[in-house]
Amino acid sequence: MNRRVIVYTLGIMLKIEGLLMLLPFITGVIYHEKSAFYYLFVGVLICCIGFLMSHHKPRNKKIYAKEGFVIVAFAWICLSVFGALPFWLSGEIPSYIDALFETISGFTTTGSSILTDVEALSRAHLFWRSFSHWIGGMGILVFVVAFMPDASGSTLHILKAEMPGPIVGKLVSKVKVTSQLLYKIYAVLTIVEVVLLMLGGMPFFDSLLNAFGTAGTGGFAIKNASIAAYQSAYVDGVITFFMILFGINFNMIYFIVIKKFAVAFKSEEVRWYLSIIAVATIVITLNITHLYSSILVAFRYAIFQVASIITTTGFVTADYGQWPLLSQIILVLLMFLGACAGSTGGGMKVSRIMISIKGALAEMRHMVHPHSVVSVEFEGSHIEPSVLENIHTYFMLYFMIFCSSLLIISLQNIDFTSAFTAVTTCIGNVGPGLGIVGPTGNFSSLSDLSKLILSFDMLAGRLEIFPILMIFSKSLWHR
Amino acid sequence: MNRRVIVYTLGIMLKIEGLLMLLPFITGVIYHEKSAFYYLFVGVLICCIGFLMSHHKPRNKKIYAKEGFVIVAFAWICLSVFGALPFWLSGEIPSYIDALFETISGFTTTGSSILTDVEALSRAHLFWRSFSHWIGGMGILVFVVAFMPDASGSTLHILKAEMPGPIVGKLVSKVKVTSQLLYKIYAVLTIVEVVLLMLGGMPFFDSLLNAFGTAGTGGFAIKNASIAAYQSAYVDGVITFFMILFGINFNMIYFIVIKKFAVAFKSEEVRWYLSIIAVATIVITLNITHLYSSILVAFRYAIFQVASIITTTGFVTADYGQWPLLSQIILVLLMFLGACAGSTGGGMKVSRIMISIKGALAEMRHMVHPHSVVSVEFEGSHIEPSVLENIHTYFMLYFMIFCSSLLIISLQNIDFTSAFTAVTTCIGNVGPGLGIVGPTGNFSSLSDLSKLILSFDMLAGRLEIFPILMIFSKSLWHR
Repeated sequence: MNRRVIVYTLGIMLKIEGLLMLLPFITGVIYHEKSAFYYLFVGVLICCIGFLMSHHKPRNKKIYAKEGFVIVAFAWICLSVFGALPFWLSGEIPSYIDALFETISGFTTTGSSILTDVEALSRAHLFWRSFSHWIGGMGILVFVVAFMPDASGSTLHILKAEMPGPIVGKLVSKVKVTSQLLYKIYAVLTIVEVVLLMLGGMPFFDSLLNAFGTAGTGGFAIKNASIAAYQSAYVDGVITFFMILFGINFNMIYFIVIKKFAVAFKSEEVRWYLSIIAVATIVITLNITHLYSSILVAFRYAIFQVASIITTTGFVTADYGQWPLLSQIILVLLMFLGACAGSTGGGMKVSRIMISIKGALAEMRHMVHPHSVVSVEFEGSHIEPSVLENIHTYFMLYFMIFCSSLLIISLQNIDFTSAFTAVTTCIGNVGPGLGIVGPTGNFSSLSDLSKLILSFDMLAGRLEIFPILMIFSKSLWHR
Repeated sequence: MNRRVIVYTLGIMLKIEGLLMLLPFITGVIYHEKSAFYYLFVGVLICCIGFLMSHHKPRNKKIYAKEGFVIVAFAWICLSVFGALPFWLSGEIPSYIDALFETISGFTTTGSSILTDVEALSRAHLFWRSFSHWIGGMGILVFVVAFMPDASGSTLHILKAEMPGPIVGKLVSKVKVTSQLLYKIYAVLTIVEVVLLMLGGMPFFDSLLNAFGTAGTGGFAIKNASIAAYQSAYVDGVITFFMILFGINFNMIYFIVIKKFAVAFKSEEVRWYLSIIAVATIVITLNITHLYSSILVAFRYAIFQVASIITTTGFVTADYGQWPLLSQIILVLLMFLGACAGSTGGGMKVSRIMISIKGALAEMRHMVHPHSVVSVEFEGSHIEPSVLENIHTYFMLYFMIFCSSLLIISLQNIDFTSAFTAVTTCIGNVGPGLGIVGPTGNFSSLSDLSKLILSFDMLAGRLEIFPILMIFSKSLWHR
């Protein structure tokens, strides 16, 4: 284990976080808020720590799989631990555990909140919360790699650990160029969304923060009623469109940008993803029509909620806790499913589920015809058994974490539905669940222990389980 | 596909079912019940149909994997379809779908009931319900093989399809001898339980039927309050002991019978199974102590409920729907887990889960040290990748059926907890769930569609998914 390179990389990352805190500081200054000071203070503090950690360049800069996992896991933990300080020091979130939960929820693009009145928060804090979605959405380390002065080919393992997914994109061969390209696409799309929202009459500040929340598929709202506060079909439409867009594999968006449309639309995962959205929307629309004035209104709410949940964003425009059971179950299943691999969304990912279903059907064919050779194809290429094994391991660990978390959460005597969906929504990086953590509720009434466990779940879900469990593995630390 | 041998075997099986209906007929005659007549009538009818089907012996008696799956799936369906007739014809269960649900619940040893007042049922019906647990527990086809006049080595594929499990027992090499031996052990243990229950003052009829329910890990109660009706710590103790015993792999019980104790107690699965029972009981006891007069009383209820649910029996002595959330969650997780492979219990089976967890941990070690060779050991022997693949396919199909069923059940607008646990308890062959299908509730208020879906789930769970899905597979029927 090359500890020096780990410390060095974490140091660079902290310096970058410190610099990023300039943005909420400036926001605070513009709005004459006292909270600005805390971002300046914490920013400087983090920069100093980062400077100390990255002062001595390690001789051996090689990063292997092991180091990749450790760097990724600790990067997300460190960023959250320090990123929570301004909320807590300013006193606007009096409990540090609450502040940590909120920050992890931000960076992991979950969007679950412990705030009962988000509108009471100062604007610097609102900015930092939503901005953390934007940074976390593309992957914290992708950011570091894109802007690290001396990123070499050895950083590939960092990217692999942070964005595993079953499909290793061909993009990652030229790590630094790719990372910068991804961020350019990401930034341009975000700006387009900001402009479109402003055209609908939304103030600049709101447009920017909601665009951060959409692009990162985060879902922190800056109004107590979330996006419903704007009461605008146009706003709903724009955000729905961008949520669905950011749930698509960035490789595909890249191909669209370089005008290789054929490649993009041949993607099996994208076609499944869009089909699932279409079917879920139609079924829910029919299921909830009687609750709204017309089928069109029902459609507007159905597609927004479906897009918000499958992409694991978590914005809401309707209290789906009041919808019929069928609609609720569809949404809960979508929380597990998640968006496309390689997107900013969370969850298990459409491709994982599709590959696994194909593998199961192939195995069944093999049982009927034991002497036949059965192979699994996805995106036009053969899936190796090792990929299937990796996916199954992922599922197994997902459910182990799920069950353990559910047991610990249930030490607090809440109802079954709330406990179950709290874990579902956090490990899936969605945001709201059902019951007390539903669209009109929040996570404030949970115990500190529950909040810590759910914070762990958010990190585990975001990093696709492996890195965050690896750091507890003896064999990783063993020489 | 050898269709003749399928029809022939199903014919023999129907004749046996017809003969077995003599037992409820005799019960009805003893108690001077009109319902006796229906068992005579249906018994004769089934025997005639069976006679017609098995009249012409097929020339080619070879049964391959394909035929094995088809025979097993259709055997369970036919037995249930005909076995439900007496309930329906007698008018005591006026709806045929209800009667079918109750019969499938019986044969699959689930124990979920649509009856709101079980004590109103005539004794012939009570006998048939509980007796179906006893037949179904050991596997309907094991019964056929044990007593089929010309069972040859080719029936091995039937047994394999009916009792797949990850561990292929060495017992099944001599099919017929083994089947008979298994039934002997099964019968003797059942008789011992009847005697012990009678020593506690329970009437013979009750003792016999409760022993059927315990041995088959079924759980149909003949009192509205289930086993709680007897209000006896002795009865609770005896049934708890036998539930735990019948949840153990029959291979191990066989080794105990032939006095190879060392082999039996070296079983990794049995040790895990007993450890899980111990831990769950201790945690629940502590969690519910405040609800009962003493910790001993709490222990008595905790161990009974834990044993009942992990073995997927489903008898109840306490309304665990009133217990704190932690205890409820533990019980729900045990519904998924189930008992040991090769026992009469349902669920996913302890060995499947343990092998899968070991596989996942091995895969994680492999990710950290990509060049190391990692192998998975269970019960002292190396687990082949094909076994792991089969287990993962099982899980995948289990969850696919689970999610599809949940969606269809939720067309009926009940609460999330009831819908979720109704599917959990039926596919796990447990019996009661939470909410309206909880320990004090029943399945009567569900729609006909829900009952049919749950019936399918009970069959799928009991036959460990594959055979029941296979019959929908095109490639099976394709020449």
